[in-house]
Amino acid sequence: MITRDDCEKFDERDVLAPLRREFRLNEGEIYLDGNSLGPVSEASSRRVNEVIDVEWAKGLVRSWNTAGWIDAPTQLGDKLAPLIGARPGEVLVADTLTFLLAKLIGGALELRSDRHVILTDAANFHSDLYIVEAMAAHARRPVIVKAIDRETLDEHLDTDVALVMLTHVDFRTGEMLEMKGITEKVHAAGALMLWDLAHSTGAVPVDLTGCDVDFAAGCGYKYLNGGPGAPAFMYVRDRWQGVTTNPLPGWLGHARPFDFEMHYEPAKGMRAFITSSPSVMALGALDGALDVFARAPMKDIRTKSLALTDLFIALVEEKLPAVFEVVTPREHDKRGSQVALRHRDGYGIVQALIEQGVIGDFRAPDICRFGFTPLYLRFVDVYDAIDRLVDVMERDLYLDERYMVRNAVT
Amino acid sequence: MITRDDCEKFDERDVLAPLRREFRLNEGEIYLDGNSLGPVSEASSRRVNEVIDVEWAKGLVRSWNTAGWIDAPTQLGDKLAPLIGARPGEVLVADTLTFLLAKLIGGALELRSDRHVILTDAANFHSDLYIVEAMAAHARRPVIVKAIDRETLDEHLDTDVALVMLTHVDFRTGEMLEMKGITEKVHAAGALMLWDLAHSTGAVPVDLTGCDVDFAAGCGYKYLNGGPGAPAFMYVRDRWQGVTTNPLPGWLGHARPFDFEMHYEPAKGMRAFITSSPSVMALGALDGALDVFARAPMKDIRTKSLALTDLFIALVEEKLPAVFEVVTPREHDKRGSQVALRHRDGYGIVQALIEQGVIGDFRAPDICRFGFTPLYLRFVDVYDAIDRLVDVMERDLYLDERYMVRNAVT
Repeated sequence: MITRDDCEKFDERDVLAPLRREFRLNEGEIYLDGNSLGPVSEASSRRVNEVIDVEWAKGLVRSWNTAGWIDAPTQLGDKLAPLIGARPGEVLVADTLTFLLAKLIGGALELRSDRHVILTDAANFHSDLYIVEAMAAHARRPVIVKAIDRETLDEHLDTDVALVMLTHVDFRTGEMLEMKGITEKVHAAGALMLWDLAHSTGAVPVDLTGCDVDFAAGCGYKYLNGGPGAPAFMYVRDRWQGVTTNPLPGWLGHARPFDFEMHYEPAKGMRAFITSSPSVMALGALDGALDVFARAPMKDIRTKSLALTDLFIALVEEKLPAVFEVVTPREHDKRGSQVALRHRDGYGIVQALIEQGVIGDFRAPDICRFGFTPLYLRFVDVYDAIDRLVDVMERDLYLDERYMVRNAVT
Repeated sequence: MITRDDCEKFDERDVLAPLRREFRLNEGEIYLDGNSLGPVSEASSRRVNEVIDVEWAKGLVRSWNTAGWIDAPTQLGDKLAPLIGARPGEVLVADTLTFLLAKLIGGALELRSDRHVILTDAANFHSDLYIVEAMAAHARRPVIVKAIDRETLDEHLDTDVALVMLTHVDFRTGEMLEMKGITEKVHAAGALMLWDLAHSTGAVPVDLTGCDVDFAAGCGYKYLNGGPGAPAFMYVRDRWQGVTTNPLPGWLGHARPFDFEMHYEPAKGMRAFITSSPSVMALGALDGALDVFARAPMKDIRTKSLALTDLFIALVEEKLPAVFEVVTPREHDKRGSQVALRHRDGYGIVQALIEQGVIGDFRAPDICRFGFTPLYLRFVDVYDAIDRLVDVMERDLYLDERYMVRNAVT
């Protein structure tokens, strides 16, 4: 039996506890949806207003130079790099995740022009599936996308495979794949590896260098707390820079952007992957949000994340035995920073729980999804969330007729 | 002889004069670079902070529905539509201009799959040239881009031409092309017409419906004052909606974005062209900026714009005879909302003038470029700007050795 007192003690010992103050959270609400949209940090709000009041209002067009707007995509990339085990000069912040995947897929196909297959996971996030199909259709040669059961990857890894594109942490189940081993296998088959880090970055330690990853991309608005529609990031291993082409080139990625040359010549390094400037306000919000991470080692984040998800799973099993199927793996090395519970009335359960002040989300057809962000969540929040979940189930609040028509939100 | 008193009288009679208060401008500075980056409006700042403090902070992930984030790209498109003579449901606000051009070029090529040539202007904005080349290279068939002298368009319009892509107002010279006549010619040749409205929107009246234009796109950060890296907009004539495909599809443009379907099925209307959500803060800034236009009929904007540029040209000729070549056409129907002056020491002149508090910009190799935004510029500003330009020229301030190494800004 775990008590609320136990949880209070966990919080007292929590080295990350002081960071909660950096975020604006609603009084009495327990936010378990930071894996969909992270909350506002004071640093984000401050930085956006600095962009507006100082850089944009006073500096105006001069701020491209004087406030460093022109370098923000690569500078912010360098700031983010340690969170994913990348080195300076390997990360760019820009656009949104789908566009960056498009650039990487298009670039990778050119690097393996003697091969014609892209392997991806049939359970991948749908946008990833759409863009990989689209980029294959627009390749300079016939390219086939095979969306497979990721458990069968070995069977499909042959000499036709140009690229393997997988998501590190499954957006539905929270299962985390073994990045190093899979990347090694892919390389052994002569293919390139692209990891989608949407549900990893800022949530679990990632070591792109140590895993010898070729390409990666992720978004800024989930665990990074960069704000709705935040710019995304992409990673190109140094060995592929200057070699991989950007299929969506733009003036800001030109070697001499202010010479207005008629023909495109890519800039050196990650700048070549810039198309145009992302919103500087949006970059500012992410910049502020990353400041918080500077005070939170990924090791501590991971330790607390596992403790939070362990606690949540233990409480579900203790207080609601046999009510839910815990879809997320129990093994720590296979778990991201979320817990997925399966229930055929999942939509109603999530909605009723939201009305009780516990914000999770629903993923069709039957997944109740709860994200755990160590930067601002307390152990007592987990305890109280389960208390309210028990209440929702015992009082049948989830069977309300309002929930019969599903109308889910991201 | 035009006197400063004359200009003060023009300002007294100016129906748009009260709008100047809506903008944050630096005391004593004359901003003639709104064609590169518009200034902050109070409405933009207010709206961004509302997004942060209310929608993001309090609403959190719920705001996708409750604050209408999910519909913001199309709703903002409808708000912008009157400025370009588009109808509701024909405009989408998203991404940046180059990405939207990519979508339109890719889509148009599929509509004219029996043709293999794209015509564009060799003097087009360089990013437009890069992306059209890239999209041609990634077409499903061999496609050639011909970057021609736009004066020779007639000679090139044959039955091979799938698409003509031109910029309505030349970013260097400020020359405005005759949209209706050119579009008619292009259609007569069986080709599709794509207009880049970067230097038109919010500056000159545009009538996409009246000119029977197929596709158009423009940016949000110039005359629209949407902020640095603001989302861009695209227009698809209603007849092409549901027919033109989006070559860069994403989950938010799916018919059922929350069903997480493995295969892409485009949403109806302009939503099909959404890839992912743009920054909601960036959308907010543009939203606020568009509020100002609701109080300024395009007719009045155009009348004042021509008066401002006429005045500027007249003062240049009166006070600095034979010093500059006025590159921008004198004819009103061929002039956008900027004046380009050619001088071999253009870079130094623009820099010296900036130090005197008049912000223009330089476009290689020899263009001093001055944008005129009727929403906040006064006639006395034009007078004073010329006064300072005369000072720069008479005192040879532009020959300072600091300006010998060119280091231009967008």
